[in-house]
Amino acid sequence: MKAEIICIGTEILLGGIVNTNSAYLSKRLAEIGIDCYCHTAVGDNPLRLYASIMQALERADIVITTGGLGPTLDDITLETVARVTKRPLVLKKDIIRLISEHFKKHRIKMAKNNLRQGYIPKSATWLKNDIGTAPGIIIRLGEKLLVALPGPPGEMQPMVEKALLLYLKKNAKAKSVILSRTLKTTGLSESQLHTRVKKFLKLSGDTTVGIYAHPSQVDLKITAKAKNIKSAKRKIGVVEKEIRKNINKLIFAVNNETLEKKVADLLGKKSIAIAESCTGGLISNRLTDVAGISKNLLFSVVAYSNKAKVNLLNIAEKQLKAYSAVSMQVARAMAKNIRTLAGSDIGIATTGIAGPTGSTKTKPIGLVYIALSTPQKTIVKRYYFAGERKIIKFRSSQATLDMLRLHLLKQ
Amino acid sequence: MKAEIICIGTEILLGGIVNTNSAYLSKRLAEIGIDCYCHTAVGDNPLRLYASIMQALERADIVITTGGLGPTLDDITLETVARVTKRPLVLKKDIIRLISEHFKKHRIKMAKNNLRQGYIPKSATWLKNDIGTAPGIIIRLGEKLLVALPGPPGEMQPMVEKALLLYLKKNAKAKSVILSRTLKTTGLSESQLHTRVKKFLKLSGDTTVGIYAHPSQVDLKITAKAKNIKSAKRKIGVVEKEIRKNINKLIFAVNNETLEKKVADLLGKKSIAIAESCTGGLISNRLTDVAGISKNLLFSVVAYSNKAKVNLLNIAEKQLKAYSAVSMQVARAMAKNIRTLAGSDIGIATTGIAGPTGSTKTKPIGLVYIALSTPQKTIVKRYYFAGERKIIKFRSSQATLDMLRLHLLKQ
Repeated sequence: MKAEIICIGTEILLGGIVNTNSAYLSKRLAEIGIDCYCHTAVGDNPLRLYASIMQALERADIVITTGGLGPTLDDITLETVARVTKRPLVLKKDIIRLISEHFKKHRIKMAKNNLRQGYIPKSATWLKNDIGTAPGIIIRLGEKLLVALPGPPGEMQPMVEKALLLYLKKNAKAKSVILSRTLKTTGLSESQLHTRVKKFLKLSGDTTVGIYAHPSQVDLKITAKAKNIKSAKRKIGVVEKEIRKNINKLIFAVNNETLEKKVADLLGKKSIAIAESCTGGLISNRLTDVAGISKNLLFSVVAYSNKAKVNLLNIAEKQLKAYSAVSMQVARAMAKNIRTLAGSDIGIATTGIAGPTGSTKTKPIGLVYIALSTPQKTIVKRYYFAGERKIIKFRSSQATLDMLRLHLLKQ
Repeated sequence: MKAEIICIGTEILLGGIVNTNSAYLSKRLAEIGIDCYCHTAVGDNPLRLYASIMQALERADIVITTGGLGPTLDDITLETVARVTKRPLVLKKDIIRLISEHFKKHRIKMAKNNLRQGYIPKSATWLKNDIGTAPGIIIRLGEKLLVALPGPPGEMQPMVEKALLLYLKKNAKAKSVILSRTLKTTGLSESQLHTRVKKFLKLSGDTTVGIYAHPSQVDLKITAKAKNIKSAKRKIGVVEKEIRKNINKLIFAVNNETLEKKVADLLGKKSIAIAESCTGGLISNRLTDVAGISKNLLFSVVAYSNKAKVNLLNIAEKQLKAYSAVSMQVARAMAKNIRTLAGSDIGIATTGIAGPTGSTKTKPIGLVYIALSTPQKTIVKRYYFAGERKIIKFRSSQATLDMLRLHLLKQ
């Protein structure tokens, strides 16, 4: 069972939009045994889009397009699909009703051009859009399927999760499935992790293990091809067990699970307060991405300036003068004081030089101190992070959350 | 002058990595008159990579690969390029020296396999990697160019900016250039903005205008094809002037400029303090992405829980009980109080329901109050945002920063 994905939008070809849809769709399709052999990007040009869909339909069993379903005149997918499939566009009252409800719910006046989105090719199956207004459509062409989905990932993905995958599982029979499991690590560089797990890496065969580096994160991805999900899971389980024997503590999460979610889970009933300097709110922002964190996070302070460190966190001016804000001593005091101020179980703090200015001979850009304080003890670690301002902020937040994770694991 | 981009990595085909490199490269190439006709993604498979490069070299003048230059055994690009170009790999001592320095700088022990990255095809030009260890390479094959760049965007992009574009400008003559300018707006939906700018939208011809929607942001992109940069800029300028006559105030930034940077610029010498509830640190995090913001941002408080609102922001418990935390009254008090506490010129505050829990019949998920307080007055606005938790946080931060921008513009 082969699929092709066509992403529509001149913006993609010109580089104005990053194509995340191909990756997302490939991944979800592979998990139900549908292999993706080709990703194409075409512009908002009816003739070229027509040719691309025709060609893809010749080669593949399933062709999925994303984009070009919006209300404006450069949205040409449905007209083109209608020509490819030789079906007229017909008005669906149910779709118009949903679109009207959408605007009512969000207290926005509906623009007239949104009515265009109520027209779909005759006899097409349509998929409800829970977030926006454009429905998705599925057209059966003999043994093949042509699917058109909205371009915005926030609209397309819920549609795939709630409807398309179920439809494909029923209507597109696969001989085998490909399943992956990603073990996410942080704390070691790609080379360092590679040295530790070299013997498990394997690029060919039915079960493969690859290593993939991101900023402050290296993933090990186990992929298995098998007759069914159960068998693929079993194959992956055998390899994962061996890997975990070697580097279990380094693995902070699996698949789509995030470090912040893991930390939130490990916190349990413990309370926490955060004093951020160089991370500027990023740690709090990541933790508050997790629903329900308000039961743990008492409060955070972004004490970006020295004045705020003195006034809000009670850091002694003389300490700031003696050691400067970016120091082991100030990090320690920030973590201790925020914990005392909040009356929390744990206090954490960051202070560092995110750049591009602020460095000195002994304190380079990327120097960051991270502290974790409990009533029993306060620990401080020093890091030298590479990259520009935002990357240094991210690496600092990653190291902080991982320090927290490792601390909580020991409890 | 035609280019093709080949992104290398089984991870891309399986959907484990989003391919941002094609977009970035297409954009930068278009700006110097090099059109990109095809994006391909191939796996870590020497035979298929070999075939892809050979085919691309037949069709295009410039072939750029990204990825597969890492130190591990699944990094196969240089070996494959060596076979395609029939050149042996030779050790470059200068590269080894740079790699050693990299590890020394970041206080990391160098793994042995990093030495692999010192080997490049004979007579290739190599490009320094300022962030990581893998150099880029350029090989001239008659009239054509084969370029191999590292996969991680953080390493690849500085290499393109600092070296590759200059090289291509010198060595790849283009007949015309394509230049784009993106006018970013927020505050209106795509349909609403479309109604306002309909007459400017134009999809064919030498100068085009397209409309592109993102969460809480709609872009107008003007693209001009012309003999040279100067002429393209002039064409864009004419259209931009007309558009600005109609919607100037809605445009918060241009091209890569961010809303947070714009706000930071407009702040000038004004000081600000932030009380975040539903945004959980995101506004502070976005503002502190801007270098030098410490002169404006006195401090932020993430008062996520009611207790923090009472203890840190002096919100009256009786007010919280009477109106609940998500109310016009509490938003107003938070903004006023954070301004007074910090002694800042401006105080801003957010309170809302980011979901997935916490909604009531009268207070749905997505209901957010945003307040801005100055000594003269305090304003509060109510919003109903669509989407899941992270999107609602983002939309709230976007509306807050734009409220700030519009306030500062009036000063």
